[in-house]
Amino acid sequence: MSELLEAAAEAGKLDAADGLAALRERFVLDDVVYLDGNSLGALPAGVPARVEDVVRRQWGELRIRSWEESGWWTAPERIGDRIAPLVGAASGQIVVGDSTSVNVFKALVAAVRMAGDGRDEILVDATTFPTDGYIAESAARMTGRSLRPVTPAEVPSALGDRTAAVLLNHVDYRTGRLHDLPALTAAVHAAGAYVVWDLCHSAGALPVGLDEHGVDLAVGCTYKYLNGGPGSPAYLYVRRDLQDRFDSPLPGWNSHAEPFGMRPAYAPASGAVRGRVGTPDILSLLALEAALEVWDGVSVEAVRAKSLALTDFFLRCVGEYVPDGLVESVTPAAHAERGSQVALRCADAGDVMKRLIERGVVGDFRAPDVLRFGFTPLYVGFADVERAARVLAETLE
Amino acid sequence: MSELLEAAAEAGKLDAADGLAALRERFVLDDVVYLDGNSLGALPAGVPARVEDVVRRQWGELRIRSWEESGWWTAPERIGDRIAPLVGAASGQIVVGDSTSVNVFKALVAAVRMAGDGRDEILVDATTFPTDGYIAESAARMTGRSLRPVTPAEVPSALGDRTAAVLLNHVDYRTGRLHDLPALTAAVHAAGAYVVWDLCHSAGALPVGLDEHGVDLAVGCTYKYLNGGPGSPAYLYVRRDLQDRFDSPLPGWNSHAEPFGMRPAYAPASGAVRGRVGTPDILSLLALEAALEVWDGVSVEAVRAKSLALTDFFLRCVGEYVPDGLVESVTPAAHAERGSQVALRCADAGDVMKRLIERGVVGDFRAPDVLRFGFTPLYVGFADVERAARVLAETLE
Repeated sequence: MSELLEAAAEAGKLDAADGLAALRERFVLDDVVYLDGNSLGALPAGVPARVEDVVRRQWGELRIRSWEESGWWTAPERIGDRIAPLVGAASGQIVVGDSTSVNVFKALVAAVRMAGDGRDEILVDATTFPTDGYIAESAARMTGRSLRPVTPAEVPSALGDRTAAVLLNHVDYRTGRLHDLPALTAAVHAAGAYVVWDLCHSAGALPVGLDEHGVDLAVGCTYKYLNGGPGSPAYLYVRRDLQDRFDSPLPGWNSHAEPFGMRPAYAPASGAVRGRVGTPDILSLLALEAALEVWDGVSVEAVRAKSLALTDFFLRCVGEYVPDGLVESVTPAAHAERGSQVALRCADAGDVMKRLIERGVVGDFRAPDVLRFGFTPLYVGFADVERAARVLAETLE
Repeated sequence: MSELLEAAAEAGKLDAADGLAALRERFVLDDVVYLDGNSLGALPAGVPARVEDVVRRQWGELRIRSWEESGWWTAPERIGDRIAPLVGAASGQIVVGDSTSVNVFKALVAAVRMAGDGRDEILVDATTFPTDGYIAESAARMTGRSLRPVTPAEVPSALGDRTAAVLLNHVDYRTGRLHDLPALTAAVHAAGAYVVWDLCHSAGALPVGLDEHGVDLAVGCTYKYLNGGPGSPAYLYVRRDLQDRFDSPLPGWNSHAEPFGMRPAYAPASGAVRGRVGTPDILSLLALEAALEVWDGVSVEAVRAKSLALTDFFLRCVGEYVPDGLVESVTPAAHAERGSQVALRCADAGDVMKRLIERGVVGDFRAPDVLRFGFTPLYVGFADVERAARVLAETLE
């Protein structure tokens, strides 16, 4: 038991020295170790009162007047600007709305159209979360291009004169592997193609640097590390100098230059607004807006440092507590290749996760054999990490 | 003033005899005459507590477990089944999610694909709410078809061997004209084409009869006469015998036969679920589900009867109160051609509507010259109608 005592003592020291520890108060939490924030972020404490105001006063009392008076109409771009600094984007390049899948479709079709008729192939991450692959297949079919699944490592050699666009994940949903966004973006550009990054598993957990690295288009969900709530709307980034060339496959009235002009002919708006489609989903959008207030005064770099410390510590505790051979990490050991989750391959992983949850350690299971543990630095501490590893060891014994 | 006294007395009698009058208690209302339920329905009284439970308990306490335990995962099809009887559909044919614009895209592309390669033209209602036209143009472009705008009256003569699909509105958003869904559907079918109906301005206000009239596909929003809240998710109807041929242009992971199998290859689910795309927007969906409870025990036929009585009475009061020549109704007088709104053409309509709203009569303005008044039979009474006409007359004098 000396390893247990040692690790528990170290967890206490790490928590005491954690400059982000107080942020936990900004969330509604209990004594569960919640390591599933990479699937659904915990409830920020300010959300319930905001949602109540939106429902009772803005909708119930002001009704239709709220489209102007409560700022409903401009919520997609206003909340986009709130997300922007978290992903390294200047304002005016992100709109919030629709699901990640719908935004992948918008971004990928627009990227193919930017590339022009001479380029007939789309590359897609073969290890992607499946929806991106399904949507990429539809985008390829509907733009008359062929689709070629390749691993991110294979992208540089697969690029060529035929490549129109490349759809990549910043962090792999299953393994937690972080891909090299700057290098891959540069490689895509060197081939004269356009890149779409899916930030679902990186935004809010680590610096993305969209502007710095010249990313063309990006999408992401807001219900993981951004804590927007179940199924909260996704976002779309279009780099400023590409916005005039963004030719949406979903040109709904909200993206019109004059949406209330009721013109029969479509004329796209300028700027990020061009990525909008239909009437924005106000309840979910404004819940997300309240949720984003937990980021006030928080540096993404500090979040990243804590994230790496948490996953390092988890891997160390698992190594010390769990008998050899029972689990195998499929998450890279190198910091440069690691997101904010640890994925452990394990026999009967589905059943093991059920037992972990019963014992107050909540991660999730991804078929066929992976236990996923996500570490949200805003509310997960080192004592949580030690407890999770300990309960895992006890469960497996 | 005798006309005023007479109409006011009649309003009192009509309200006293109104079998639906008590339904007003199911909504949060004040002394404003709210005739904008055809843009944003009023807040149903049961919604705030439900939303609070969804946020605080389902999200805040159960967190990720709610996807199963709180029925989040199945909400799109469960709530679709709740809408089904309101539009004359048996269960298993409607899913809720995404915006109306996105659903128009899904439905129209799917309809074109059902029609097959030999049919190269899409007809679209030339008088449509603009987003349908913009999306139809994109659907035509992306499926290699041509798009031809025609008025609903011109549809029968425009149909032919080339027609793949026709996109129509059940009720015109501007004039309030009700189109002949059974006859137009039959005409489209006689030409061997497929029809997509937009029900935004009819569902919840009058019987639609989707199954009875053999409609192929339909879409609609839920924030007008269904009172789902600002930007609440739209729905998609796919007739049961067409579901196996529904080939979605947005085949997100939620429409996969085995969504948690994480398969790289897409295999569509059976049934209405095939119309889903990405992760459903739970806050807005469950607010809508609570909102739909106001329909318990309510017959759509009774709603329709009251709607016609309300619009008849409004037209009569306007005729009696407003001096000749100041307004002109662009809404058909014939019941068979009237939805649940009255649109009055009027000089300086934008300014007139502002003054009406200042005086507690809330309708809306649609460019260039139309005052729109929507009559939601669930919470609008005859005294409201008389007051609205009276204030309009005073405002115009």
